[in-house]
Amino acid sequence: MVPRPSIDRLLARLEALGEIGAIPHAGPSGGGSARLALTDEDRRGRDLVVSWMRDLGLDVSIDGLGNVIAVWRVGDDPNGAPVMMGSHIDTVRTGGKFDGNLGVLAGLEVIEALQTAELAPLRPLAVAFFTNEEGARFAPDMMGSLVYVGGLGLEEALDVIGIDGARVGDEVERIGYGGSLPSPGPVPHSFVELHIEQGPVLEEAGVTIGAVTGVQGISWTEVTVTGRSSHAGTTPMRLRVDPLVVAGRIIAHVREVAVRMGGDQVATVGRVAVFPNLVNVVPASVTLTVDVRNTDETLLQQAEADIFDFIEAACAREGCEVTRRTLARFEPVEFEERVVELVESTARNLGYTVQRMPSGAGHDAQMLARVCPTAMIFTPSVGGLSHNPAEFTDRGDLLAGASVLIDVVWRLANEP
Amino acid sequence: MVPRPSIDRLLARLEALGEIGAIPHAGPSGGGSARLALTDEDRRGRDLVVSWMRDLGLDVSIDGLGNVIAVWRVGDDPNGAPVMMGSHIDTVRTGGKFDGNLGVLAGLEVIEALQTAELAPLRPLAVAFFTNEEGARFAPDMMGSLVYVGGLGLEEALDVIGIDGARVGDEVERIGYGGSLPSPGPVPHSFVELHIEQGPVLEEAGVTIGAVTGVQGISWTEVTVTGRSSHAGTTPMRLRVDPLVVAGRIIAHVREVAVRMGGDQVATVGRVAVFPNLVNVVPASVTLTVDVRNTDETLLQQAEADIFDFIEAACAREGCEVTRRTLARFEPVEFEERVVELVESTARNLGYTVQRMPSGAGHDAQMLARVCPTAMIFTPSVGGLSHNPAEFTDRGDLLAGASVLIDVVWRLANEP
Repeated sequence: MVPRPSIDRLLARLEALGEIGAIPHAGPSGGGSARLALTDEDRRGRDLVVSWMRDLGLDVSIDGLGNVIAVWRVGDDPNGAPVMMGSHIDTVRTGGKFDGNLGVLAGLEVIEALQTAELAPLRPLAVAFFTNEEGARFAPDMMGSLVYVGGLGLEEALDVIGIDGARVGDEVERIGYGGSLPSPGPVPHSFVELHIEQGPVLEEAGVTIGAVTGVQGISWTEVTVTGRSSHAGTTPMRLRVDPLVVAGRIIAHVREVAVRMGGDQVATVGRVAVFPNLVNVVPASVTLTVDVRNTDETLLQQAEADIFDFIEAACAREGCEVTRRTLARFEPVEFEERVVELVESTARNLGYTVQRMPSGAGHDAQMLARVCPTAMIFTPSVGGLSHNPAEFTDRGDLLAGASVLIDVVWRLANEP
Repeated sequence: MVPRPSIDRLLARLEALGEIGAIPHAGPSGGGSARLALTDEDRRGRDLVVSWMRDLGLDVSIDGLGNVIAVWRVGDDPNGAPVMMGSHIDTVRTGGKFDGNLGVLAGLEVIEALQTAELAPLRPLAVAFFTNEEGARFAPDMMGSLVYVGGLGLEEALDVIGIDGARVGDEVERIGYGGSLPSPGPVPHSFVELHIEQGPVLEEAGVTIGAVTGVQGISWTEVTVTGRSSHAGTTPMRLRVDPLVVAGRIIAHVREVAVRMGGDQVATVGRVAVFPNLVNVVPASVTLTVDVRNTDETLLQQAEADIFDFIEAACAREGCEVTRRTLARFEPVEFEERVVELVESTARNLGYTVQRMPSGAGHDAQMLARVCPTAMIFTPSVGGLSHNPAEFTDRGDLLAGASVLIDVVWRLANEP
């Protein structure tokens, strides 16, 4: 019988880690944290988590980017490929307590629960936290896991300059987290990430566990429409070349495309900058961003093509110039059916409601899926909130997530 | 025979005044000026223009708000109501050389040309410049002429606080322009303002003179749409309450209303602020401005009603909250038919092409029209540019405008 995780120990670690860089909040979470990657706050968070790893007798390795891998060397082949759990402990500037931290600390709890029950699996277990998942200080996001699986060269990552002018490599050394584990890192047997949903789907459906089928492909484009600035009172309508009218049509169309395509398609204009932005001046130019996501690459490309064609046509109709710049583009990731099925059946066997769902946000798991079977388990986010000190997941849901995690890991670690 | 104005003298004065607070520019204008109302630059501009007024032997009066009225006391009743010319000499921060200044300095040129020709009309002539027409430092715009005609109390105007925290009354005293002429001021026989068009209509039509039929009514509204901020990746389309989608529809609709109504109707969204304005966040709120103008009050109200109804419906459809705030509202002003006809026939008699047109921008003349017959003469603006150091009107067009001015003034000053 696989033991149950201790929700009290898990919550105590979440609270203790959340105290580092704490942001108070009046809601049920009591607040979040600000621990931007490779800052002093990140170092203090790392030191705390590594001390817990050592308390559990884990073998801690650190690579050149500061990715930390702690292995419980047990089983038939203590030096063989482990079943790896984990996520990240860096946060955005207005981060919550759960995003990332949950996956790392629940991994420690899985190991502690097994050790307490004096149960060892056939394969070693590992808990990892990857550097700079958020991308809030250094681009790209998911940097650590991308380097770990060989998707980005270590040297290239170390040379990245952040929003504050700091270099990744210098900051890794400064906080004392430049290690000797080679990059790419050792390939795990499998990877399992428990994470809060960061969206409203589970809460709205009244479901406790999300069996994540994959991660949506993401397309970020910056569009600049240039027209002809003129006086809003003295310029007849027929003589106008108004980039904001074009932008308005684009914003409305982006919504229409997503609604018409249906399924998992989402599309958002989130940022708009108007120049010169005065009540009585027809604008000279407008810059906006288009965020398009789908779990299916073909559909994602269809959505992009529809939106980009519309932008060209709308600009031509008004006589505006347009330029486009890709800010980010990741293809969708699909997790292996057997691990999705494993999460789903495990949750059901434990008596939890469960539903399959894609992840709308990016996660370290999508990088690990390039090299090994990978699973993600979602727990509900109250109000769908994340990247916000009010981010919260109920105690019962946290226990459910950790329970599914320990059973899934136990199954994977005892596979023939 | 009425004499011709001297374009060289007029240009020399425009250049000399433009040097005060000069902004260099590479274009044909050579640059513009920054003389915000009641600043030290404004004082230096005032001092120069008043010195020219005294050189012409005019009787200079100043009221409590710093409006300056210079009268050439001639004719059958030297103390009777004069035919008044004028405009303003304050500018916006990125002002041109011609906006306002032309109407004041052409007025001086009319008097100098008549004096040189030793011709005196039956009635006195006056040249005025009104305080703070632009409204760039203190609201409302057209403040001086509004107080002069009794539309705003002097004390109320003196108590206005500007964008830099300064009080109008203190600044009037500080620059030495608090005078004793009562407010409201003496009612002129008539008022004639020569001004650059500040729009592209005359240039596009290839016409030299605009006979201004009136000033459009203006309606400025600030609209704030509030939705529900959420993650652009994890929030399904059906769960979104996106204020930027609503804003996009509003922007597109504002254009549609103006085009559908036709005629003189114009409508503009010029300013948009999105919060939090991030690529991957469905916005929490959007604030935008709607500028609606028409020469006909009934049509203006129709346009407002159509737009406001649409805003309510679009917000309701998305589930957004909306608030509206009036930033400015002036009813249209119609000039007397006989003075419009006088401008038109005078231009035609001089061999200039002329067309009737409303003014899209506000002018001191619209305030004077409350108390006396009022005419406005427009000259073309190259590229429709104004409030810009590149603002420019050709020498020939300036001469045409000043020629129409002197003939119109001569006719009005010799009316029975």
